[in-house]
Amino acid sequence: MRREELLEILRGIRKGRVGVEEAAARIALEPVTDLGFANLDQHRELRKDLPEVVYCEGKPPGTLGSIARSLAERSTGNILLTRASEEAYREVKECFPDAEYLPLARIIVLRREERPKVGKVVVVTGGTADIPVAEEAATVAEISGNRVERLFDVGVAGIHRLLSRTEVFEGAKVVVVVAGMEGALASIVGGLVSCPVIAVPTSVGYGASFGGLSALLTMLNSCAPGVAVVNIDNGFGAGYLAHLINQASAGSGRP
Amino acid sequence: MRREELLEILRGIRKGRVGVEEAAARIALEPVTDLGFANLDQHRELRKDLPEVVYCEGKPPGTLGSIARSLAERSTGNILLTRASEEAYREVKECFPDAEYLPLARIIVLRREERPKVGKVVVVTGGTADIPVAEEAATVAEISGNRVERLFDVGVAGIHRLLSRTEVFEGAKVVVVVAGMEGALASIVGGLVSCPVIAVPTSVGYGASFGGLSALLTMLNSCAPGVAVVNIDNGFGAGYLAHLINQASAGSGRP
Amino acid sequence: MRREELLEILRGIRKGRVGVEEAAARIALEPVTDLGFANLDQHRELRKDLPEVVYCEGKPPGTLGSIARSLAERSTGNILLTRASEEAYREVKECFPDAEYLPLARIIVLRREERPKVGKVVVVTGGTADIPVAEEAATVAEISGNRVERLFDVGVAGIHRLLSRTEVFEGAKVVVVVAGMEGALASIVGGLVSCPVIAVPTSVGYGASFGGLSALLTMLNSCAPGVAVVNIDNGFGAGYLAHLINQASAGSGRP
Amino acid sequence: MRREELLEILRGIRKGRVGVEEAAARIALEPVTDLGFANLDQHRELRKDLPEVVYCEGKPPGTLGSIARSLAERSTGNILLTRASEEAYREVKECFPDAEYLPLARIIVLRREERPKVGKVVVVTGGTADIPVAEEAATVAEISGNRVERLFDVGVAGIHRLLSRTEVFEGAKVVVVVAGMEGALASIVGGLVSCPVIAVPTSVGYGASFGGLSALLTMLNSCAPGVAVVNIDNGFGAGYLAHLINQASAGSGRP
Amino acid sequence: MRREELLEILRGIRKGRVGVEEAAARIALEPVTDLGFANLDQHRELRKDLPEVVYCEGKPPGTLGSIARSLAERSTGNILLTRASEEAYREVKECFPDAEYLPLARIIVLRREERPKVGKVVVVTGGTADIPVAEEAATVAEISGNRVERLFDVGVAGIHRLLSRTEVFEGAKVVVVVAGMEGALASIVGGLVSCPVIAVPTSVGYGASFGGLSALLTMLNSCAPGVAVVNIDNGFGAGYLAHLINQASAGSGRP
Amino acid sequence: MRREELLEILRGIRKGRVGVEEAAARIALEPVTDLGFANLDQHRELRKDLPEVVYCEGKPPGTLGSIARSLAERSTGNILLTRASEEAYREVKECFPDAEYLPLARIIVLRREERPKVGKVVVVTGGTADIPVAEEAATVAEISGNRVERLFDVGVAGIHRLLSRTEVFEGAKVVVVVAGMEGALASIVGGLVSCPVIAVPTSVGYGASFGGLSALLTMLNSCAPGVAVVNIDNGFGAGYLAHLINQASAGSGRP
Amino acid sequence: MRREELLEILRGIRKGRVGVEEAAARIALEPVTDLGFANLDQHRELRKDLPEVVYCEGKPPGTLGSIARSLAERSTGNILLTRASEEAYREVKECFPDAEYLPLARIIVLRREERPKVGKVVVVTGGTADIPVAEEAATVAEISGNRVERLFDVGVAGIHRLLSRTEVFEGAKVVVVVAGMEGALASIVGGLVSCPVIAVPTSVGYGASFGGLSALLTMLNSCAPGVAVVNIDNGFGAGYLAHLINQASAGSGRP
Amino acid sequence: MRREELLEILRGIRKGRVGVEEAAARIALEPVTDLGFANLDQHRELRKDLPEVVYCEGKPPGTLGSIARSLAERSTGNILLTRASEEAYREVKECFPDAEYLPLARIIVLRREERPKVGKVVVVTGGTADIPVAEEAATVAEISGNRVERLFDVGVAGIHRLLSRTEVFEGAKVVVVVAGMEGALASIVGGLVSCPVIAVPTSVGYGASFGGLSALLTMLNSCAPGVAVVNIDNGFGAGYLAHLINQASAGSGRP
Repeated sequence: MRREELLEILRGIRKGRVGVEEAAARIALEPVTDLGFANLDQHRELRKDLPEVVYCEGKPPGTLGSIARSLAERSTGNILLTRASEEAYREVKECFPDAEYLPLARIIVLRREERPKVGKVVVVTGGTADIPVAEEAATVAEISGNRVERLFDVGVAGIHRLLSRTEVFEGAKVVVVVAGMEGALASIVGGLVSCPVIAVPTSVGYGASFGGLSALLTMLNSCAPGVAVVNIDNGFGAGYLAHLINQASAGSGRP
Repeated sequence: MRREELLEILRGIRKGRVGVEEAAARIALEPVTDLGFANLDQHRELRKDLPEVVYCEGKPPGTLGSIARSLAERSTGNILLTRASEEAYREVKECFPDAEYLPLARIIVLRREERPKVGKVVVVTGGTADIPVAEEAATVAEISGNRVERLFDVGVAGIHRLLSRTEVFEGAKVVVVVAGMEGALASIVGGLVSCPVIAVPTSVGYGASFGGLSALLTMLNSCAPGVAVVNIDNGFGAGYLAHLINQASAGSGRP
Repeated sequence: MRREELLEILRGIRKGRVGVEEAAARIALEPVTDLGFANLDQHRELRKDLPEVVYCEGKPPGTLGSIARSLAERSTGNILLTRASEEAYREVKECFPDAEYLPLARIIVLRREERPKVGKVVVVTGGTADIPVAEEAATVAEISGNRVERLFDVGVAGIHRLLSRTEVFEGAKVVVVVAGMEGALASIVGGLVSCPVIAVPTSVGYGASFGGLSALLTMLNSCAPGVAVVNIDNGFGAGYLAHLINQASAGSGRP
Repeated sequence: MRREELLEILRGIRKGRVGVEEAAARIALEPVTDLGFANLDQHRELRKDLPEVVYCEGKPPGTLGSIARSLAERSTGNILLTRASEEAYREVKECFPDAEYLPLARIIVLRREERPKVGKVVVVTGGTADIPVAEEAATVAEISGNRVERLFDVGVAGIHRLLSRTEVFEGAKVVVVVAGMEGALASIVGGLVSCPVIAVPTSVGYGASFGGLSALLTMLNSCAPGVAVVNIDNGFGAGYLAHLINQASAGSGRP
Repeated sequence: MRREELLEILRGIRKGRVGVEEAAARIALEPVTDLGFANLDQHRELRKDLPEVVYCEGKPPGTLGSIARSLAERSTGNILLTRASEEAYREVKECFPDAEYLPLARIIVLRREERPKVGKVVVVTGGTADIPVAEEAATVAEISGNRVERLFDVGVAGIHRLLSRTEVFEGAKVVVVVAGMEGALASIVGGLVSCPVIAVPTSVGYGASFGGLSALLTMLNSCAPGVAVVNIDNGFGAGYLAHLINQASAGSGRP
Repeated sequence: MRREELLEILRGIRKGRVGVEEAAARIALEPVTDLGFANLDQHRELRKDLPEVVYCEGKPPGTLGSIARSLAERSTGNILLTRASEEAYREVKECFPDAEYLPLARIIVLRREERPKVGKVVVVTGGTADIPVAEEAATVAEISGNRVERLFDVGVAGIHRLLSRTEVFEGAKVVVVVAGMEGALASIVGGLVSCPVIAVPTSVGYGASFGGLSALLTMLNSCAPGVAVVNIDNGFGAGYLAHLINQASAGSGRP
Repeated sequence: MRREELLEILRGIRKGRVGVEEAAARIALEPVTDLGFANLDQHRELRKDLPEVVYCEGKPPGTLGSIARSLAERSTGNILLTRASEEAYREVKECFPDAEYLPLARIIVLRREERPKVGKVVVVTGGTADIPVAEEAATVAEISGNRVERLFDVGVAGIHRLLSRTEVFEGAKVVVVVAGMEGALASIVGGLVSCPVIAVPTSVGYGASFGGLSALLTMLNSCAPGVAVVNIDNGFGAGYLAHLINQASAGSGRP
Repeated sequence: MRREELLEILRGIRKGRVGVEEAAARIALEPVTDLGFANLDQHRELRKDLPEVVYCEGKPPGTLGSIARSLAERSTGNILLTRASEEAYREVKECFPDAEYLPLARIIVLRREERPKVGKVVVVTGGTADIPVAEEAATVAEISGNRVERLFDVGVAGIHRLLSRTEVFEGAKVVVVVAGMEGALASIVGGLVSCPVIAVPTSVGYGASFGGLSALLTMLNSCAPGVAVVNIDNGFGAGYLAHLINQASAGSGRP
């Protein structure tokens, strides 16, 4: 409930159009947040910009179609289904024949608006095995309206591959670094750039990588300032956060 | 070395003003990065904006004064000494009688320029014991030229304390959430705001908090998107990252 | 052996109806607990109220039917088989054609008595993926004779969902909070209500959730007092404990 | 803001006593919780029954007196200062000369009301080294108005010590089990009684007890149903929860 | 090589019966252990008493038959194949048609001698799910010539089941306690008996049992003296060690 | 209560010497264990052989004297105080001027009987830093009446030191292996001897020894059968268990 | 770009042969590494000696053939595909009919040059289950041109097996020790030889071996100097490092 | 005992110069290894080259002097005392007035021979706080006769510092990388050089560095081949291993 609506009700009372009991009921029925969080509404409007997102893993078979349909009804923006298998895609496609599937990113897109791409997000990976997580991040950012550049397979064991490509970082508003095994790439990129770096540890590796724990600890202990970390394999979270940072940088400059 | 400088040297050769050997030496003497990383120089200029920082813990007694003096010589900006004890302060004060000490933030400041405060960074803590880490973050951000608002002791056990103060988040470009024990505050703030949230787990707690591990895991697993995590007790890192994000948002809008 | 029985035997000796050796043998043969634990018998009678419970996982195929039959013989109450697969159900159904299967709760019920539902237990989940564990808890409580209300998918990332529904907690004698990922919901509910809160971490999540460890630590470190924790995914344990607390609250008021 | 107050404001508008803008402002100014959480107020009233509590550890020297004084001003109930050292006591005693110190429980009490002791809480420890944590739990419960019985040093290595004393559990509404090292006592008590059991792992032990982790895991994995766990060494939490459960059992029976 | 043999060779040189080169070769050819470990030979003779043992898990299919055959050639005692699946049994049965399979213990026995059963080993389990590990221990002990009594499913949640059966421990030379989940049974048995207790944690459990870690830590931290622990699920190791202890107790008394 | 006593009471009833109520009271008053655990009494008699033991660490200053005195009153055997500092010794010495202090083993002995040393226990250490734990084990065993041989500082990095001394294992009934760092010594000794091996991991080491965890895991995973493990630094537990095994081996041979 | 090349360009400017812009472009276009890393080129030449290596696990089906083909085009040396399944082999064989498969080492070799075998690398395993990892190490070393001797199944439980074979270490330039379970073998070999020892923990084991963690910690804590550790199951890494060390020892002596 | 010596003794018997008993005694007195490990003797001779080493930490005060003296008697080489405090130095200086103390490396040297420095070992650190561990490694290598170059404080956050100094790696036979926090430096150096890299994680860091665990895992998971890891803070072990590798490379080339 916006302030305007509240005033409207109150004016209605004054004018006798609204009964006191009815007004109390309407005020009470509104979710708390709609009264007290007027300021947050603006936030939520920002969010409406964002694609709606469904995390497919663990959803019982046969339910994805109807979940997507209900989302499509309450929003006019793009809809993303992340961690989606081929089977999930077949299921969704029955309801939405024009659904797209990005197998590398494991994302299904119901594309319903095309946003202009602004700013610059760079997504970097240490190895080729980190690419699915990186593509998840890159796709989320792109569909949310950010220009994304990819720089894959530039891990620290061949640091010159990274160093000979540093021009890609020029003008970047935020860099997403996706790496498994020892995860050292985040520190190096953090030392090269001066925009925020979002580090995504991946569960790529074996032995004492302990399912991504090694890369996670490395990234948390990064001695390069300006680096923050999201959960292991959380490409979506990184892409979303990159979107927030990039939009703020890009958007605030609008005349 | 900028492209202009390089061209200048080359033109000097052509014109006979510069000898070939001398030119080679000048090119070779430049650090590698100055040739290949022209783009990064702009970054470094941004960085020069930043205060120089010394991490005091573990530095042998008697060395802080000279470290600070050498920093003061090569830079004209503010100088911060973090994790500084009272003793560290006495040591630095001998060399810099106007050094300030912020005991809560455990920071010594050699203030040599005053920056205008722009944008808005909100620093939130769960409890009172998290305040030293929060003050470290807030101080780093403030001295770097960011407007900071503090909202302390609004932990989740009394969620209404937080909810009755949500107007503080209005207009925030970035929120830093500092919390120990179960660290749940980051998720809640992440669900309330739509700007980036930097979560700082603290080692506050006992028993199964395991020196901050509990809060760290909570924050990494946050189901609110837009949250990224820095190392346990890493107030400096959070303040620095908040500065990067806030400046980009605020600065890009300059006419 | 109750005190009365013991006295009876002793009187029999006095009266010559019972030989000394026979009396010693009868006293010695009684299990220890029957002498020393008279007070516990009343407890066990309380327990007889409870459904008999079989944990199905890991039981060899083909044995569930006979286990259930033997339980049905020694008790007249309801019988629950938890962590039951569809296959387990088919197996049990052959012996008990009227066995019910609650697939969400993964529980098979052999319903043989209907208890009045008293008091009020609220079962809350953070996400939809936590529902199976929550349903296990809710079902155990319901079948044991407790009124249960469910409030699912009110995780902390959208805290207003929870806050707009707080009336559900009115009159609750105990709240069961089921949450995976960061598990912060327990702290928030603990801060909202003043009855006991039983927190159930779930293994829902990925990456650094480490199979429920993250949620478990969060809940143990809850800064809201009045929260206690059961094992990861232990819906049964939470439902049982909720029953004990709710019955005590509800029952002690009987005239 | 209670429903009555809201109605009052609305009636004021109707009657022209209150302006629309003023009403909107008054509604908006009220903390969210006072509108939406009417039901919670009753909870908070229950809580006011409870002693106010200060966790002393980590509080800077010289602050405890003023903290206690400010608590004493806003509440008329008892005030507890937990984890209090002798020094903390001396500090508090200067402001409150009649402050009591319970060195075993490490609690300072500002006793300002005497509550009748109702119900029955049993506090059990495995060893003598667990007694400080147990006394913290027992003291919190006693001062909150619960009858407490102690059964200390009945660890499982001499199980007969426990078994010969089982009559202490008769009539208990809740049992608090405090144990370090292997923490097995919680399972055993859980198997003996049918009321809720609150298990408190302690950091007592050495080697692979890993600061209480061993006891914590044991208690979480208890195969006795009806057992829930609080944080390592968290005597206060256990005492508080025991109070909630015992009061509900005892209180609901009042005519 | 015993001292006598060495002297014999040396005397042979002196007497010219043995050439210097030949003597050097004989001394050098003797495995190191045969010179320095004369005392160990007697040990190895003791060991020959024991069944030969093959750990089947991880052995490539098709190799078990030949491994068993080669063992059968170099030894006349019983041969055990532990952790054996039904398939392993079929494979072995082709070579040894009279091989027995004990599916509960997952052991294949090639029985070639029958030993008298001496002494008394008691094998106890907490639950029914621990029985496979317990049967592995019991079978190893029985086939090695020890009298074994089983006491299964006497876990601590129903401590009276154990206490009413304590006569089984009379005369025991060693007790093997097999338990998963919280593993508390080892401490209780350790407090009841005065012979050595071998504790075997099992991976039975879920959630925070962490694959047996919980039971392992519990058992290591047992406050009952006289308890030692083997690896998680290591029934064989426990049975073997029980054999060593029981034989020593039983055997040393022979006239 | 022994069977004889029970019969006596029952006969008293028959003869009228004892009233029925009085008999019931006397039977009920006896601790449970005295009725049901007749068989365990013999065990406890065995135990009376053992020294009484006090674990000094964590005991408040000024209490050791009275604890020792109370033990001395209820037992005539030797009394050991383990983990005793020099200060603890001074405290005890005031009450017991003839108390001995073994600083290496950190044990205070109140020697009140001299037992013949039987059998053979070998105590081995990997390094010199493991000696305090080893001496604790050795002292406990010696004072309990076992012949102990020490073989210190024979760690695996210089395996020949161990191999050149293997004659020390001849005739050993049990070997205690005390080692920190990598703890490999237990496996090697386990491969050399055929009597039971008790492995004691120590917290000696640095870095990734993690307070004894490394040695603990090594010992649990020993591929040598016949090895069981006690808690980190638990010299007392190892010495006690060695006593049980050695006495059984030695004692059962008595004519 | 070597200094000579840089000078050449500069001279070209002076002489008017090269335009300033063109020179700047050529200098800027050179990858950073070609200017600053002249010294590393020699390293890379050394590396060209090595086989090219592909880690097969996790590569999507159908891609191995083309990866191998592209490697074969840019290099004339041997090509190894590690962690290769039978299916991977079938895939590669279609492109390279003469590809060899070493199933024990799980390596596919495209052999295109035969190197002389120099020096001496010894590869030792604790058990037979460690052989695949050991064969991976041995094969990598052999194909890279090192003489390899294998000594398998000499684990510490039967230390005499190792000790009777110590002549195999004579002349070794480096020893690779591959062991799971308790991993103690590395310490023992480290104590026997004076050349570098590379320890490879394997995930062989069960229970508290925790997927190789136990062996890893053991090896890191080895009290034998001269031992360094690679990742769990990292046979390739050990073989490669052994190659580096052995070649340096062997090669530096060439006239 | 070498074969020659053995033959000499045997010939002595034949010739009557040596009695049989005396010969047996001499053969038996020789440590086992001297007979069976002839090949190892050469190793030990190599080792005699090495300084004798004492690990000071944990040695009781007052014993270092006599330990050093006994070492000085049995060896003529240099003697190192590692992890030595100033106090340790004072203690040793009383016995050896010319003892040197290297406070950064925490090493006391009793220098008794000067070895020529051969080959090239590079020791690199990430930060200044890693220098003590690096100096320990460098000092051990230098005193053992290796040429050492230091490159300190070139951590990955400022990767250009490292890259502008790569010429230091030219000709290196082995590189020791010492780094705490995220430990990424080892991977980068491993990607730059082609000689073996010994990685030493340090306990430098805070928060989630967990006492060096983070750096340790990073280094173990290095995706650069040719990297092996020693224990946390184990500068001595790294220096010793570097010595072995460097000497082999350097020494084998001697004419």
